[in-house]
Amino acid sequence: METDLVENKQILFKSYTNEYVKETDMELKLGSPMKLEAPKGSNAVLVKNLYLSCDPYMRGRMRDFNRSYMPPFSPGSAVEGLGVSKVVDSDDPNFKKGDFVAGITNWEEYTLIHKTSELRKIQQDDGIPLSYHVGLLGMPGFTAYVGFYEVCAPKKGDYVYVSAASGAVGQLVGQLAKLHGCYVVGSAGTSQKVELLKNKLGFDDAFNYKDELDLESALTRYFPQGIDIYFDNVGGEMLDATLANMRAHGRVAVCGMVSQNTRTDTQSFRNMFSVISKRITIKGFLQSDFIHLYHRFLEDITSYYKEGKIVYIENMNHGLESAPTAFVGLFSGKNVGKQVICVASE
Amino acid sequence: METDLVENKQILFKSYTNEYVKETDMELKLGSPMKLEAPKGSNAVLVKNLYLSCDPYMRGRMRDFNRSYMPPFSPGSAVEGLGVSKVVDSDDPNFKKGDFVAGITNWEEYTLIHKTSELRKIQQDDGIPLSYHVGLLGMPGFTAYVGFYEVCAPKKGDYVYVSAASGAVGQLVGQLAKLHGCYVVGSAGTSQKVELLKNKLGFDDAFNYKDELDLESALTRYFPQGIDIYFDNVGGEMLDATLANMRAHGRVAVCGMVSQNTRTDTQSFRNMFSVISKRITIKGFLQSDFIHLYHRFLEDITSYYKEGKIVYIENMNHGLESAPTAFVGLFSGKNVGKQVICVASE
Repeated sequence: METDLVENKQILFKSYTNEYVKETDMELKLGSPMKLEAPKGSNAVLVKNLYLSCDPYMRGRMRDFNRSYMPPFSPGSAVEGLGVSKVVDSDDPNFKKGDFVAGITNWEEYTLIHKTSELRKIQQDDGIPLSYHVGLLGMPGFTAYVGFYEVCAPKKGDYVYVSAASGAVGQLVGQLAKLHGCYVVGSAGTSQKVELLKNKLGFDDAFNYKDELDLESALTRYFPQGIDIYFDNVGGEMLDATLANMRAHGRVAVCGMVSQNTRTDTQSFRNMFSVISKRITIKGFLQSDFIHLYHRFLEDITSYYKEGKIVYIENMNHGLESAPTAFVGLFSGKNVGKQVICVASE
Repeated sequence: METDLVENKQILFKSYTNEYVKETDMELKLGSPMKLEAPKGSNAVLVKNLYLSCDPYMRGRMRDFNRSYMPPFSPGSAVEGLGVSKVVDSDDPNFKKGDFVAGITNWEEYTLIHKTSELRKIQQDDGIPLSYHVGLLGMPGFTAYVGFYEVCAPKKGDYVYVSAASGAVGQLVGQLAKLHGCYVVGSAGTSQKVELLKNKLGFDDAFNYKDELDLESALTRYFPQGIDIYFDNVGGEMLDATLANMRAHGRVAVCGMVSQNTRTDTQSFRNMFSVISKRITIKGFLQSDFIHLYHRFLEDITSYYKEGKIVYIENMNHGLESAPTAFVGLFSGKNVGKQVICVASE
């Protein structure tokens, strides 16, 4: 097959950092001219990237730290992340030109993907936006699903608190908790997000944590009866304030620590003793440990969505070049909802 | 029944403190002369106290803090604690003169106990010292038993770390873990305790945490493969250092925080992120939630002891007047083994 060469725009990762991640830690470059084909014998697929996902966990891959659950990025190579792509050429019999796939790809226009076994073929559905396959039906949605049902041990009537509640994960946790018959309060960092939580996402109540001088007493105000479940997306001071407000036998699912910039930031806790006196369980988890539930998750969440029981808010930026700014914005809460980059339309 | 009046020596609790507890927070006094009888219609028992238990949890009752799992002591009243006592007179048909009982009593020579339903009658056994009913077969032993079997989810071959390992709870946790087929390392604060752990209590290894400049690397040295279970009796810096050394899916049973002087001491954590990346479960517990297992515990531990599978080390001080010093000594690790006060011989 004779194909034209294309110059492949890419976002490269430049070098490791332990400071706040900046746009200049990445750069836009033109890759070397490439053929839009999957070489014979490679078993690879050549995809056109449509949607790229900006997720906080990627911050961890920008450190020179090899002992985490994901290896660090290679400086000088394209940023790696989850995406929705369209197959342009395939040397893998399981995929054909025109298929839509979700999985790990690169921050570039076209990617030759060798690990095709980790790609998930998307059954296209007019009722569901393709981009949701990196959000509601992707890793963040699955994180919310297993975190809530498998880690939090929820019961009807439980008092549930969600931090970063309008984010990619939090917004679904809150809605699942409501469907489960729980009382749900969320926190976020702008009044716009608080409005969304209350008026669009169906939380019973919500507050802007930046307006609160004392998080501990704020939580006491929103949960006079105490908290049964805390779904923690931020860590640090908020986790500490929550411990003081937990009920006996409360559960904390630790999903993210976006407040923690470096792996070894010192965090001060005043309320650790509550872990004993209230018999609290604090449980860290990774969605990847529950992958056997992925199929059930897709079925459940797709049904809920189609039945109008849940909604999903995306923050869509357009153009590959917008990705570094959008990614960095995650850590100061600039995104309203799940942050996605639209690289190309189908 | 005509009886002589006795002057009842007591240790009174003086006033609440948020500082380090001191001997002068308690005082020895003679109580008002009392008759050694259980008044008719009182349903009470009058006991002679033989052994009194010094336990770290009692520190919490010396604070003016009403929201914990135990109410605060009353200033000016005798210190309340667990003990082994002999019934002198009984108005409760379930007890008779000469019975030995274990339960909550006062730090004094004689106590009139009204809550007789909370007393446990001791089946005397020549093979088992009476004082063990506030240690190996009492609350600390039960704490070790449920903490290890019910909270830590132990498996044969697990790497187990115990802090305050020669204490009332830790020494039994380590021995149960060895019986379960685990690899067990303990830490303590003197070389004498380290020797006991290795040579008498059967730990695979042990170290003096005071000799270590860097607890995190010390633990890496003792557990090059990482830690599956941490039985935490101290909290604070040691808990933080352990988090960095846990294996994936590790479990931390939080039993005590003797390093934390006040309820709101600030504790610095550098390794909280490990809770996510290693999917660690941190679980606080109170033995009182497992009381349905007490009978099984007594049977199991009594058998183990009689079969010579476990030993128990006590630090016995003599005389009621020695109790304040012994109690305060718990918080600087002066006791070697379970701290008991012998008030009177049978």
